[in-house]
Amino acid sequence: MSDVEGARAHGSDEAEVLERQRYLEEKGLSIEWLKRDSYPGGSVKGNIENYLGTARVPVGLAGPLLIEGAHARGSFDIPLATTEGSLVASYNRGMRVIRESGGCRAAVFSDHMQRAPMFRFDSLEGARRFTDWLRENRSALEASASKTTKHGRLTDIDTYNLGRNVYVRFGFHTGDAAGQNMVNAATYQVCLDIRESYPGADEIESFNLSSKFCTDKKYSRVNVLKSRGKKVTAEVDIPAAVLEDRLRTSPDIVCEHMLNGNLSAIYAGCVSNGFHAANGLAALFIACGNDPANVAESHADLLDVRASAAGLYVAATLPSLIVGTVGGGTGLPTQSECLGILGCRGAGNALKFAEICTGVVLAGEISLIGAIASEEWAGAHEALGRNRPGEAG
Amino acid sequence: MSDVEGARAHGSDEAEVLERQRYLEEKGLSIEWLKRDSYPGGSVKGNIENYLGTARVPVGLAGPLLIEGAHARGSFDIPLATTEGSLVASYNRGMRVIRESGGCRAAVFSDHMQRAPMFRFDSLEGARRFTDWLRENRSALEASASKTTKHGRLTDIDTYNLGRNVYVRFGFHTGDAAGQNMVNAATYQVCLDIRESYPGADEIESFNLSSKFCTDKKYSRVNVLKSRGKKVTAEVDIPAAVLEDRLRTSPDIVCEHMLNGNLSAIYAGCVSNGFHAANGLAALFIACGNDPANVAESHADLLDVRASAAGLYVAATLPSLIVGTVGGGTGLPTQSECLGILGCRGAGNALKFAEICTGVVLAGEISLIGAIASEEWAGAHEALGRNRPGEAG
Amino acid sequence: MSDVEGARAHGSDEAEVLERQRYLEEKGLSIEWLKRDSYPGGSVKGNIENYLGTARVPVGLAGPLLIEGAHARGSFDIPLATTEGSLVASYNRGMRVIRESGGCRAAVFSDHMQRAPMFRFDSLEGARRFTDWLRENRSALEASASKTTKHGRLTDIDTYNLGRNVYVRFGFHTGDAAGQNMVNAATYQVCLDIRESYPGADEIESFNLSSKFCTDKKYSRVNVLKSRGKKVTAEVDIPAAVLEDRLRTSPDIVCEHMLNGNLSAIYAGCVSNGFHAANGLAALFIACGNDPANVAESHADLLDVRASAAGLYVAATLPSLIVGTVGGGTGLPTQSECLGILGCRGAGNALKFAEICTGVVLAGEISLIGAIASEEWAGAHEALGRNRPGEAG
Amino acid sequence: MSDVEGARAHGSDEAEVLERQRYLEEKGLSIEWLKRDSYPGGSVKGNIENYLGTARVPVGLAGPLLIEGAHARGSFDIPLATTEGSLVASYNRGMRVIRESGGCRAAVFSDHMQRAPMFRFDSLEGARRFTDWLRENRSALEASASKTTKHGRLTDIDTYNLGRNVYVRFGFHTGDAAGQNMVNAATYQVCLDIRESYPGADEIESFNLSSKFCTDKKYSRVNVLKSRGKKVTAEVDIPAAVLEDRLRTSPDIVCEHMLNGNLSAIYAGCVSNGFHAANGLAALFIACGNDPANVAESHADLLDVRASAAGLYVAATLPSLIVGTVGGGTGLPTQSECLGILGCRGAGNALKFAEICTGVVLAGEISLIGAIASEEWAGAHEALGRNRPGEAG
Repeated sequence: MSDVEGARAHGSDEAEVLERQRYLEEKGLSIEWLKRDSYPGGSVKGNIENYLGTARVPVGLAGPLLIEGAHARGSFDIPLATTEGSLVASYNRGMRVIRESGGCRAAVFSDHMQRAPMFRFDSLEGARRFTDWLRENRSALEASASKTTKHGRLTDIDTYNLGRNVYVRFGFHTGDAAGQNMVNAATYQVCLDIRESYPGADEIESFNLSSKFCTDKKYSRVNVLKSRGKKVTAEVDIPAAVLEDRLRTSPDIVCEHMLNGNLSAIYAGCVSNGFHAANGLAALFIACGNDPANVAESHADLLDVRASAAGLYVAATLPSLIVGTVGGGTGLPTQSECLGILGCRGAGNALKFAEICTGVVLAGEISLIGAIASEEWAGAHEALGRNRPGEAG
Repeated sequence: MSDVEGARAHGSDEAEVLERQRYLEEKGLSIEWLKRDSYPGGSVKGNIENYLGTARVPVGLAGPLLIEGAHARGSFDIPLATTEGSLVASYNRGMRVIRESGGCRAAVFSDHMQRAPMFRFDSLEGARRFTDWLRENRSALEASASKTTKHGRLTDIDTYNLGRNVYVRFGFHTGDAAGQNMVNAATYQVCLDIRESYPGADEIESFNLSSKFCTDKKYSRVNVLKSRGKKVTAEVDIPAAVLEDRLRTSPDIVCEHMLNGNLSAIYAGCVSNGFHAANGLAALFIACGNDPANVAESHADLLDVRASAAGLYVAATLPSLIVGTVGGGTGLPTQSECLGILGCRGAGNALKFAEICTGVVLAGEISLIGAIASEEWAGAHEALGRNRPGEAG
Repeated sequence: MSDVEGARAHGSDEAEVLERQRYLEEKGLSIEWLKRDSYPGGSVKGNIENYLGTARVPVGLAGPLLIEGAHARGSFDIPLATTEGSLVASYNRGMRVIRESGGCRAAVFSDHMQRAPMFRFDSLEGARRFTDWLRENRSALEASASKTTKHGRLTDIDTYNLGRNVYVRFGFHTGDAAGQNMVNAATYQVCLDIRESYPGADEIESFNLSSKFCTDKKYSRVNVLKSRGKKVTAEVDIPAAVLEDRLRTSPDIVCEHMLNGNLSAIYAGCVSNGFHAANGLAALFIACGNDPANVAESHADLLDVRASAAGLYVAATLPSLIVGTVGGGTGLPTQSECLGILGCRGAGNALKFAEICTGVVLAGEISLIGAIASEEWAGAHEALGRNRPGEAG
Repeated sequence: MSDVEGARAHGSDEAEVLERQRYLEEKGLSIEWLKRDSYPGGSVKGNIENYLGTARVPVGLAGPLLIEGAHARGSFDIPLATTEGSLVASYNRGMRVIRESGGCRAAVFSDHMQRAPMFRFDSLEGARRFTDWLRENRSALEASASKTTKHGRLTDIDTYNLGRNVYVRFGFHTGDAAGQNMVNAATYQVCLDIRESYPGADEIESFNLSSKFCTDKKYSRVNVLKSRGKKVTAEVDIPAAVLEDRLRTSPDIVCEHMLNGNLSAIYAGCVSNGFHAANGLAALFIACGNDPANVAESHADLLDVRASAAGLYVAATLPSLIVGTVGGGTGLPTQSECLGILGCRGAGNALKFAEICTGVVLAGEISLIGAIASEEWAGAHEALGRNRPGEAG
């Protein structure tokens, strides 16, 4: 068998996996660690095709994160999977600051997963009538959506019209799953029912189940403004003394740096004014069986930093956090163990997990704010010697 | 010892790792798979702090990808680490289309890693004089940069002025490393030398090593326009018959969908007009020891799709692909094995790896274009039954 | 009296105007044309302070524009006030293409003027409760709004939450006025009533009548996505022969140029994929007493251009067109005359005027599409000799 | 003669103008003020086609603006043409604050007009070779550009590559003209010479004189980042007492409002964090014969506001200010008179005018910052009664 195609049909039975491994080894490649004691082929069906073995990503334990949310309450050890040195140390430092500040608070502001089909009409009037009809037939559409899913629930219909094109952003509550697949099927069912029940259905010139208005797996303005997945804020009020002790800086210095940073974020056209939410989210997503590709959407982080009576108020808002505690990779062994460390394994925990994710992002931003704010001329060598996860800008 | 703090000082000696594991197990948590045959603590120093064990991410083998680049030439089996079902199958399908189209071509258009300090002056004139001076003293700055690194080389100085604030985007060639750390140190050295040699240094009111103009770990307009890391394009010309056989669609249908998609990308404020570069990049980065947080920057994908004489021309351009084949997690066991499968292990391979990454993204976009274009009313059930990695919009 | 301050108190009585004129003339400045037969001071109260005289802007008559909208129906001569040579000729050429194509169609998709106050709460929970309360008390708020205005009507409440900050985008139907002032007063009244009736009003830490979410006098993503003012589309189907005769190009050539143009719009980060809506809108606004500063918001133009059975389909959508036919400068003499030429003078005509504005923009885009598409190497000298209003990219 | 077409051929001879007027009057329309004592037809050739008469826009005199720039030095009375009540009063208030603060300073940071043709190659390699060639043949291209213009000078070549498409942003110094037409011709000449001299010219598959990378008559990210036209900053340091006396607010209150405003600008996706530069620029452009359509590009205003030792530091940066003192409408009677009031008539005054424009924008922003910052609950009725030009968010 001379190529990888032969070793597929996407199968992951043990024999197929072995054949695939042999194919590589016969080329003289070493795949010892990938093979070594990896998840059994049968156990990863649904998670992978053309299964070969398992990649290992080191996990460090940061924390504990002290958080008071509506769902996550208490002290949490945080497993972070990464190969980037200093990332865990940096987040750990931020969590210490949060603890010494009495913990952070968190709140979930919305919780929907979207899919946005496009309907193109054969006239402008057709597009307009359809927009009106959608508004007036919302409850029927909600009933339609409920046919395909017992967990999903249509909660939002947001239309964006561009002449003859009508982009409809359907939002669903998806329980504890991130929910992209559930929403795909439910939206399709709704669209089929629209075709049946909408009096002007024959005016639909073309149809597409998914436009760029979802927006999946990529940053978009509509996701930041109208949210996708969970919208969560975590905040903390850091006493000036803690800021001085742990981050060697002061509220005034931080505020001046944030002012310059906000200007440069606006000028450079940044996704948001946050620093490195992507670091913490990628590490948490890999550890906990969530999809790291969602970092593309989820890493937008709107930071509110200002002087407070106590010292420094810092709040991180993630407008499009895509997470779940069921489905995807959440049930695989190490992934399930990491969710277990967080007390977030399985159903009933998605909002708790979302609040923890946001608290972790907050910790990372605090740590980096400290690194940046103390990176003045004078503190040159220490500043560069201090742990920071790659970046600060 | 009652909490994770006790088990740290960031250490990863065996004893510390064991203590950390015991701490969790004493809480009644199972971490069997995380511990199981994991990388020895001593071997992950530099990659992780507070080491606990290893997360396992299933790896599937897609391909081969047939590519003719300046650096990657030939047929490559592609290891993709993911827990998202159908991702490997989808990319595999795209690679088959590419093979049956005679392979894709690739080219690297630029290769720089940036760091952008901010200098604030005490007058507008001071800011302007400094901007002029930077332009006139470029070669001295290049020499300065070379002091701190033998691999890095200052290749670009791009200034962005906002009144008294001057943001200087220093670009470096960083060899085969992604290079963020190298660039951090080299930029700092350049800045120290500026402080020594710039006649108006005492007009600098404040300084910050990193502004939002880098822009690290987050999407920004300046990165899309001026690139960060590698800028690479991969392209393929797909015969109409292959499009019909493998993706059940035609050039005309695809072009109409792209037209609607481009409009919706512009309207929705998407990062680019690509579909799901984040999926393939996250899976490759995890497999190959590259930093998955860089998906935030790297996932911008500008797609050029148009009818051609043969059928359909498709090109994917990644303006800010951040990758390396040395440093970071590239030397860890499974990561090194996956780079080995690609023939990209170690020095001399970063541009080859960058071209492969872009070819993989191209394959994924082709597969999803096919799924979307065939997702019409008529093809309802098949369309939804077909493999697609989560998304299409 | 030695400076302009002396000649003010903002007054525009004849004596004050004369004093102001004398002040300049005593400096040796000529203001003969500004003074000459200008509007009487008493007649411009409410439109200007520190009145000096009138600037003259040449008006050209383009058209007629043949349009079939819901409000504008028939053939309209179009007065355009500009000092830029070739602008009128270019728009005129586009209107001829539209006429020879049987006219354009137009539709208004929404009609609201927004004002967006910010409420900052003393806790995340406070912000969330307020968001919920707004949703549940909509009808009371509508009644509140109606207290301050007989023309305005609260039609939309769109909330954007950023942690403790709640930005509420109140949308009003404002009759035939552009409505910014009406909306300002009505929103303030609503906010005062919220302070009275919201049980958690004492949790409001700070308040601001206007945040950047309105967004007035500047382009913003939220305005493009959710509209401000009128959202209008005009479309036309141009026979291939007309395209050939009048614009010396073909549907295929135009479509290829649009494809390249859409890619470059996405890449360059343009406001939209239109060409020069600003030209036509500025000229119409000045002629008709609408506020030319609103070009900043209104110039976003989403173009849908595609091959059709007849030849070329072109549609222009203005998501944030800010216009009115009462208030502002609409009642001044030449302004009223120009509105009269359009049959749009006074109440009852705002939507008609909005449709005409969009038809004019469509004409301008068609003309420039033609200029660009025929600007190939071969046609060099003619292309550059042909009329085009300044721009094409 | 039954329609406007008959009265054209774009002519503006007296007979043609009369015929055009008669055509409207025969329809029963009044155009008395448009006709009245309007500019003679012969004098507006080059500025208008299908000339009908002149629109009158009231001009108010604000100021004086006290400014210390490199080009504008001293005290300037500012003519503003607008029909929007309170605009002049608001700008006037800002200029008083500036005067009482000792005046503002201004500096021009760059001065180029751009045109960006697109070259599409028949291969990726072709695109790459061309990009390299452009870099290496810069001086020859500069010589080429100088053939078509004695005022223009090629100063910048900035390439943006998207696979096979190469967008080349040519920047020219254009003397005292805004320069779009000059640049159009010069760029075309450069492109013709490229076709002659570039060895790979036969690899150019298609060419377009203007892509969206210019970007003319519309806001774009590339213009904000890399500037188009003039880039100018004006700044002032306002004593706390002046802030209190004239704007009834304090540095602390303003800074808190700016912080909230910057967050909302980032969140809402605003063009910049400024408030209403469009108001002042439109009024100045109309008064002074500059093109008000350029408000679309020029209204981006990056505001740097921070507490200072004296009170409040405010700086306004316009990254893409498009202005000139020759060409366009600058030579028409009232326009020339208004430039005369500014001491900016004719050649040698473009940078002076640019600095004044930016100072005026600064005054408007200061006035509105004051209005917003004092618009708290307590100050309700006064706040709403106070002059503000339409907007605040």
